[in-house]
Amino acid sequence: MSHIQRHGVTSRWSDVVIHRGVAYFVEVPDDPSLDAGGQFEQLFQQVDARLALANSNRERILQVLIYLPYPEDLPLFNRMWEAWVPEGHAPSRACSHPQLAAPGYRAELILTAACLD
Amino acid sequence: MSHIQRHGVTSRWSDVVIHRGVAYFVEVPDDPSLDAGGQFEQLFQQVDARLALANSNRERILQVLIYLPYPEDLPLFNRMWEAWVPEGHAPSRACSHPQLAAPGYRAELILTAACLD
Amino acid sequence: MSHIQRHGVTSRWSDVVIHRGVAYFVEVPDDPSLDAGGQFEQLFQQVDARLALANSNRERILQVLIYLPYPEDLPLFNRMWEAWVPEGHAPSRACSHPQLAAPGYRAELILTAACLD
Repeated sequence: MSHIQRHGVTSRWSDVVIHRGVAYFVEVPDDPSLDAGGQFEQLFQQVDARLALANSNRERILQVLIYLPYPEDLPLFNRMWEAWVPEGHAPSRACSHPQLAAPGYRAELILTAACLD
Repeated sequence: MSHIQRHGVTSRWSDVVIHRGVAYFVEVPDDPSLDAGGQFEQLFQQVDARLALANSNRERILQVLIYLPYPEDLPLFNRMWEAWVPEGHAPSRACSHPQLAAPGYRAELILTAACLD
Repeated sequence: MSHIQRHGVTSRWSDVVIHRGVAYFVEVPDDPSLDAGGQFEQLFQQVDARLALANSNRERILQVLIYLPYPEDLPLFNRMWEAWVPEGHAPSRACSHPQLAAPGYRAELILTAACLD
Protein backbone atom coordinates (compact mmCIF):
# COMPACT_ATOMS: atom_id res chain seq x y z
CA MET A 1 0.00 0.00 0.00
CA SER A 2 1.51 3.33 -1.06
CA HIS A 3 2.47 5.39 1.95
CA ILE A 4 0.95 8.77 2.81
CA GLN A 5 2.83 11.14 5.11
CA ARG A 6 0.95 13.95 6.88
CA HIS A 7 2.45 16.83 8.87
CA GLY A 8 0.55 19.25 11.11
CA VAL A 9 -2.66 17.24 11.13
CA THR A 10 -5.74 18.90 12.66
CA SER A 11 -9.37 17.82 12.58
CA ARG A 12 -9.87 20.09 9.55
CA TRP A 13 -6.71 19.86 7.44
CA SER A 14 -3.07 18.80 7.34
CA ASP A 15 -0.32 21.36 6.80
CA VAL A 16 1.44 19.10 4.27
CA VAL A 17 0.51 15.77 2.70
CA ILE A 18 3.15 13.74 0.84
CA HIS A 19 2.51 10.81 -1.49
CA ARG A 20 4.87 9.18 -3.98
CA GLY A 21 7.34 12.04 -3.86
CA VAL A 22 4.76 14.79 -4.36
CA ALA A 23 3.86 17.27 -1.59
CA TYR A 24 0.44 18.96 -1.45
CA PHE A 25 -0.04 22.00 0.76
CA VAL A 26 -2.06 25.19 1.18
CA GLU A 27 -0.88 28.39 2.84
CA VAL A 28 -2.55 31.51 4.17
CA PRO A 29 -0.56 34.10 6.15
CA ASP A 30 -0.27 33.32 9.84
CA ASP A 31 -1.01 36.94 10.73
CA PRO A 32 -3.93 38.47 8.77
CA SER A 33 -3.54 41.77 10.67
CA LEU A 34 -0.46 42.60 8.56
CA ASP A 35 -0.82 44.75 5.44
CA ALA A 36 -0.69 43.09 2.00
CA GLY A 37 3.10 43.34 1.67
CA GLY A 38 3.61 42.00 5.19
CA GLN A 39 1.25 39.10 4.53
CA PHE A 40 2.96 38.17 1.26
CA GLU A 41 6.39 38.28 2.89
CA GLN A 42 5.16 36.07 5.70
CA LEU A 43 3.46 33.74 3.22
CA PHE A 44 6.68 33.13 1.28
CA GLN A 45 8.53 32.42 4.55
CA GLN A 46 5.84 29.91 5.47
CA VAL A 47 6.09 28.26 2.06
CA ASP A 48 9.87 27.95 2.50
CA ALA A 49 9.34 26.27 5.87
CA ARG A 50 6.71 23.88 4.48
CA LEU A 51 8.92 22.97 1.53
CA ALA A 52 11.77 22.18 3.94
CA LEU A 53 9.41 20.01 6.00
CA ALA A 54 8.51 18.11 2.81
CA ASN A 55 12.16 17.68 1.81
CA SER A 56 11.64 20.03 -1.13
CA ASN A 57 12.62 23.61 -1.95
CA ARG A 58 11.72 26.66 -4.10
CA GLU A 59 13.30 25.04 -7.15
CA ARG A 60 10.92 22.08 -7.03
CA ILE A 61 7.44 23.64 -7.08
CA LEU A 62 5.33 22.10 -9.83
CA GLN A 63 2.13 24.11 -9.68
CA VAL A 64 0.70 27.03 -7.74
CA LEU A 65 -2.88 28.25 -7.67
CA ILE A 66 -2.97 31.78 -6.33
CA TYR A 67 -6.13 33.20 -4.77
CA LEU A 68 -5.89 36.98 -4.40
CA PRO A 69 -9.21 38.30 -3.07
CA TYR A 70 -8.17 41.95 -3.61
CA PRO A 71 -7.31 42.39 -7.32
CA GLU A 72 -5.44 45.62 -6.59
CA ASP A 73 -2.80 43.55 -4.74
CA LEU A 74 -1.69 41.77 -7.92
CA PRO A 75 1.18 44.09 -9.00
CA LEU A 76 2.75 43.99 -5.53
CA PHE A 77 2.23 40.23 -5.28
CA ASN A 78 3.87 39.72 -8.68
CA ARG A 79 6.93 41.81 -7.76
CA MET A 80 7.43 39.88 -4.53
CA TRP A 81 6.72 36.55 -6.25
CA GLU A 82 9.29 37.17 -8.99
CA ALA A 83 11.90 38.13 -6.40
CA TRP A 84 11.17 34.94 -4.46
CA VAL A 85 11.05 32.35 -7.29
CA PRO A 86 14.57 31.18 -8.31
CA GLU A 87 15.44 31.99 -11.91
CA GLY A 88 14.70 29.10 -14.24
CA HIS A 89 12.43 27.29 -11.76
CA ALA A 90 9.04 29.01 -11.93
CA PRO A 91 6.09 26.61 -11.55
CA SER A 92 2.92 26.37 -13.61
CA ARG A 93 0.79 29.20 -12.19
CA ALA A 94 -2.85 30.33 -12.17
CA CYS A 95 -4.13 33.44 -10.44
CA SER A 96 -7.76 34.31 -9.73
CA HIS A 97 -9.68 36.58 -7.39
CA PRO A 98 -12.26 34.57 -5.45
CA GLN A 99 -13.52 35.64 -2.03
CA LEU A 100 -11.66 33.76 0.73
CA ALA A 101 -13.06 32.07 3.83
CA ALA A 102 -11.61 34.70 6.19
CA PRO A 103 -11.97 38.33 5.01
CA GLY A 104 -8.63 39.49 6.47
CA TYR A 105 -6.47 37.28 4.27
CA ARG A 106 -4.86 38.96 1.25
CA ALA A 107 -3.72 35.68 -0.40
CA GLU A 108 -4.07 31.91 -0.32
CA LEU A 109 -1.67 29.60 -2.17
CA ILE A 110 -2.33 26.01 -3.20
CA LEU A 111 0.96 24.31 -3.97
CA THR A 112 2.18 21.04 -5.44
CA ALA A 113 5.91 20.34 -5.13
CA ALA A 114 8.31 17.50 -5.92
CA CYS A 115 10.21 16.10 -2.93
CA LEU A 116 13.89 15.24 -3.04
CA ASP A 117 14.26 11.49 -3.00
CA MET B 1 2.45 3.75 -21.84
CA SER B 2 1.13 4.58 -18.39
CA HIS B 3 -2.46 3.48 -18.05
CA ILE B 4 -5.39 5.84 -17.40
CA GLN B 5 -8.60 4.46 -15.92
CA ARG B 6 -11.84 6.45 -16.30
CA HIS B 7 -15.20 5.76 -14.62
CA GLY B 8 -18.53 7.36 -15.48
CA VAL B 9 -17.34 8.94 -18.70
CA THR B 10 -19.68 11.43 -20.41
CA SER B 11 -19.02 13.80 -23.29
CA ARG B 12 -18.23 16.55 -20.74
CA TRP B 13 -16.39 14.89 -17.85
CA SER B 14 -15.51 11.62 -16.15
CA ASP B 15 -16.68 10.88 -12.62
CA VAL B 16 -13.24 9.57 -11.60
CA VAL B 17 -9.90 9.43 -13.41
CA ILE B 18 -7.08 7.24 -12.05
CA HIS B 19 -3.42 7.40 -13.08
CA ARG B 20 -0.39 5.89 -11.33
CA GLY B 21 -2.26 5.26 -8.12
CA VAL B 22 -3.79 8.74 -7.85
CA ALA B 23 -7.52 9.38 -8.30
CA TYR B 24 -8.85 12.74 -9.50
CA PHE B 25 -12.52 13.56 -9.06
CA VAL B 26 -15.00 16.41 -8.63
CA GLU B 27 -18.31 16.27 -6.78
CA VAL B 28 -21.41 18.41 -6.64
CA PRO B 29 -24.53 17.21 -4.78
CA ASP B 30 -26.81 15.01 -6.88
CA ASP B 31 -29.86 16.89 -5.61
CA PRO B 32 -29.48 20.69 -5.58
CA SER B 33 -33.04 21.09 -4.27
CA LEU B 34 -31.89 19.98 -0.80
CA ASP B 35 -30.96 22.62 1.81
CA ALA B 36 -27.27 23.23 2.58
CA GLY B 37 -27.05 20.55 5.28
CA GLY B 38 -28.83 18.02 3.07
CA GLN B 39 -26.52 18.81 0.16
CA PHE B 40 -23.38 18.46 2.29
CA GLU B 41 -24.57 15.13 3.73
CA GLN B 42 -25.29 13.86 0.22
CA LEU B 43 -21.95 15.19 -1.02
CA PHE B 44 -19.98 13.25 1.59
CA GLN B 45 -21.91 10.08 0.72
CA GLN B 46 -21.08 10.62 -2.94
CA VAL B 47 -17.39 11.13 -2.08
CA ASP B 48 -17.40 7.86 -0.10
CA ALA B 49 -18.85 6.05 -3.11
CA ARG B 50 -16.35 7.59 -5.52
CA LEU B 51 -13.45 6.74 -3.23
CA ALA B 52 -14.65 3.13 -3.08
CA LEU B 53 -14.86 3.06 -6.89
CA ALA B 54 -11.25 4.27 -7.03
CA ASN B 55 -10.10 1.66 -4.49
CA SER B 56 -9.43 4.40 -1.97
CA ASN B 57 -11.12 5.65 1.22
CA ARG B 58 -11.53 8.68 3.52
CA GLU B 59 -8.12 8.03 5.06
CA ARG B 60 -6.33 8.46 1.74
CA ILE B 61 -7.43 11.89 0.51
CA LEU B 62 -4.40 14.01 -0.40
CA GLN B 63 -5.94 17.36 -1.29
CA VAL B 64 -9.37 18.97 -1.38
CA LEU B 65 -10.34 22.27 -2.94
CA ILE B 66 -13.67 23.39 -1.54
CA TYR B 67 -15.88 25.82 -3.45
CA LEU B 68 -18.62 27.21 -1.21
CA PRO B 69 -20.60 29.82 -3.16
CA TYR B 70 -22.52 30.92 -0.06
CA PRO B 71 -19.99 32.06 2.57
CA GLU B 72 -22.58 31.79 5.33
CA ASP B 73 -22.55 27.98 4.84
CA LEU B 74 -18.95 27.66 6.04
CA PRO B 75 -19.55 26.99 9.77
CA LEU B 76 -22.05 24.22 8.99
CA PHE B 77 -19.80 22.79 6.28
CA ASN B 78 -16.84 22.74 8.68
CA ARG B 79 -18.82 20.95 11.41
CA MET B 80 -19.97 18.26 8.97
CA TRP B 81 -16.50 18.02 7.37
CA GLU B 82 -14.78 17.50 10.72
CA ALA B 83 -17.27 14.79 11.68
CA TRP B 84 -16.67 13.07 8.34
CA VAL B 85 -12.85 13.18 8.10
CA PRO B 86 -11.19 10.38 10.11
CA GLU B 87 -8.96 11.63 12.95
CA GLY B 88 -5.33 11.89 11.87
CA HIS B 89 -6.11 11.73 8.14
CA ALA B 90 -7.20 15.23 7.11
CA PRO B 91 -6.03 16.25 3.63
CA SER B 92 -4.43 19.48 2.50
CA ARG B 93 -7.41 21.84 2.16
CA ALA B 94 -8.30 25.16 0.54
CA CYS B 95 -11.69 26.83 0.75
CA SER B 96 -12.89 29.75 -1.37
CA HIS B 97 -16.23 31.28 -2.37
CA PRO B 98 -16.46 31.50 -6.16
CA GLN B 99 -19.78 31.49 -7.99
CA LEU B 100 -20.58 28.00 -9.30
CA ALA B 101 -21.86 26.97 -12.72
CA ALA B 102 -25.33 26.05 -11.40
CA PRO B 103 -26.81 28.50 -8.86
CA GLY B 104 -28.56 25.80 -6.79
CA TYR B 105 -25.40 24.06 -5.67
CA ARG B 106 -24.14 24.89 -2.16
CA ALA B 107 -20.72 23.21 -2.61
CA GLU B 108 -18.33 21.71 -5.12
CA LEU B 109 -15.35 19.57 -4.07
CA ILE B 110 -12.24 18.89 -6.15
CA LEU B 111 -10.43 15.88 -4.72
CA THR B 112 -7.13 14.07 -5.18
CA ALA B 113 -6.78 10.72 -3.40
CA ALA B 114 -4.25 7.90 -3.21
CA CYS B 115 -5.54 4.49 -4.33
CA LEU B 116 -4.78 1.28 -2.48
CA ASP B 117 -2.33 -0.76 -4.53
CA MET C 1 16.61 13.05 -7.30
CA SER C 2 13.44 12.93 -9.35
CA HIS C 3 13.74 15.04 -12.46
CA ILE C 4 11.60 18.11 -13.20
CA GLN C 5 11.26 19.34 -16.77
CA ARG C 6 10.14 22.94 -17.43
CA HIS C 7 9.21 24.48 -20.80
CA GLY C 8 8.69 28.17 -21.50
CA VAL C 9 10.14 29.37 -18.21
CA THR C 10 9.75 33.07 -17.36
CA SER C 11 10.39 34.90 -14.11
CA ARG C 12 6.71 34.45 -13.22
CA TRP C 13 5.65 31.01 -14.47
CA SER C 14 6.54 28.09 -16.71
CA ASP C 15 4.31 27.14 -19.63
CA VAL C 16 4.52 23.43 -18.74
CA VAL C 17 6.09 21.55 -15.83
CA ILE C 18 6.57 17.78 -16.04
CA HIS C 19 7.36 15.45 -13.14
CA ARG C 20 7.13 11.65 -12.98
CA GLY C 21 5.07 11.43 -16.15
CA VAL C 22 2.53 14.09 -15.15
CA ALA C 23 2.33 17.48 -16.89
CA TYR C 24 0.99 20.57 -15.11
CA PHE C 25 -0.01 23.61 -17.15
CA VAL C 26 -2.28 26.64 -17.21
CA GLU C 27 -3.69 28.35 -20.30
CA VAL C 28 -5.30 31.69 -21.04
CA PRO C 29 -6.01 32.75 -24.63
CA ASP C 30 -3.06 34.43 -26.32
CA ASP C 31 -5.34 37.11 -27.77
CA PRO C 32 -7.85 38.53 -25.26
CA SER C 33 -9.20 40.93 -27.90
CA LEU C 34 -11.08 38.04 -29.56
CA ASP C 35 -14.73 37.40 -28.69
CA ALA C 36 -15.60 34.49 -26.37
CA GLY C 37 -15.88 31.92 -29.18
CA GLY C 38 -12.61 33.09 -30.70
CA GLN C 39 -10.84 32.91 -27.35
CA PHE C 40 -12.12 29.40 -26.63
CA GLU C 41 -11.07 28.17 -30.09
CA GLN C 42 -7.61 29.66 -29.58
CA LEU C 43 -7.43 28.21 -26.07
CA PHE C 44 -8.07 24.67 -27.29
CA GLN C 45 -5.41 25.08 -29.99
CA GLN C 46 -2.96 26.25 -27.32
CA VAL C 47 -3.83 23.27 -25.12
CA ASP C 48 -3.19 20.91 -28.06
CA ALA C 49 0.22 22.52 -28.60
CA ARG C 50 1.11 22.31 -24.89
CA LEU C 51 0.03 18.68 -24.72
CA ALA C 52 2.25 17.89 -27.71
CA LEU C 53 5.15 19.67 -26.00
CA ALA C 54 4.60 17.47 -22.94
CA ASN C 55 4.41 14.30 -25.02
CA SER C 56 0.74 13.93 -24.21
CA ASN C 57 -2.53 14.46 -26.08
CA ARG C 58 -6.27 15.16 -25.66
CA GLU C 59 -6.89 11.55 -24.67
CA ARG C 60 -4.60 11.79 -21.64
CA ILE C 61 -5.97 14.77 -19.66
CA LEU C 62 -6.57 13.77 -16.04
CA GLN C 63 -8.15 16.89 -14.55
CA VAL C 64 -9.23 20.33 -15.70
CA LEU C 65 -10.26 23.27 -13.54
CA ILE C 66 -12.15 25.77 -15.67
CA TYR C 67 -12.37 29.43 -14.66
CA LEU C 68 -15.06 31.24 -16.65
CA PRO C 69 -15.36 34.81 -15.37
CA TYR C 70 -18.49 35.48 -17.46
CA PRO C 71 -21.13 32.89 -16.46
CA GLU C 72 -23.11 33.60 -19.63
CA ASP C 73 -20.27 32.03 -21.66
CA LEU C 74 -20.84 28.58 -20.16
CA PRO C 75 -23.24 27.12 -22.79
CA LEU C 76 -20.90 28.13 -25.65
CA PHE C 77 -17.85 26.89 -23.75
CA ASN C 78 -19.55 23.55 -23.11
CA ARG C 79 -20.50 23.07 -26.78
CA MET C 80 -16.94 23.79 -27.91
CA TRP C 81 -15.45 21.68 -25.10
CA GLU C 82 -17.59 18.66 -25.96
CA ALA C 83 -16.62 18.93 -29.63
CA TRP C 84 -12.95 19.11 -28.63
CA VAL C 85 -12.72 16.30 -26.04
CA PRO C 86 -12.35 12.86 -27.68
CA GLU C 87 -15.21 10.48 -26.94
CA GLY C 88 -14.45 8.24 -23.96
CA HIS C 89 -11.56 10.37 -22.70
CA ALA C 90 -13.12 13.27 -20.79
CA PRO C 91 -11.13 14.34 -17.70
CA SER C 92 -12.33 15.06 -14.20
CA ARG C 93 -13.71 18.61 -14.49
CA ALA C 94 -14.70 21.52 -12.26
CA CYS C 95 -16.06 24.83 -13.49
CA SER C 96 -16.41 28.01 -11.45
CA HIS C 97 -16.76 31.73 -12.14
CA PRO C 98 -14.06 33.67 -10.28
CA GLN C 99 -12.78 37.03 -11.48
CA LEU C 100 -9.51 36.60 -13.42
CA ALA C 101 -6.30 38.60 -13.16
CA ALA C 102 -6.81 40.28 -16.56
CA PRO C 103 -10.38 41.47 -17.25
CA GLY C 104 -10.24 40.71 -21.00
CA TYR C 105 -9.84 36.95 -20.61
CA ARG C 106 -13.00 34.86 -21.06
CA ALA C 107 -11.46 31.63 -19.70
CA GLU C 108 -8.49 30.16 -17.85
CA LEU C 109 -7.80 26.41 -17.78
CA ILE C 110 -5.68 24.58 -15.19
CA LEU C 111 -4.72 21.18 -16.57
CA THR C 112 -3.09 17.99 -15.36
CA ALA C 113 -2.23 15.41 -18.02
CA ALA C 114 -0.44 12.07 -18.23
CA CYS C 115 2.58 11.98 -20.53
CA LEU C 116 3.31 9.11 -22.88
CA ASP C 117 6.26 7.13 -21.55
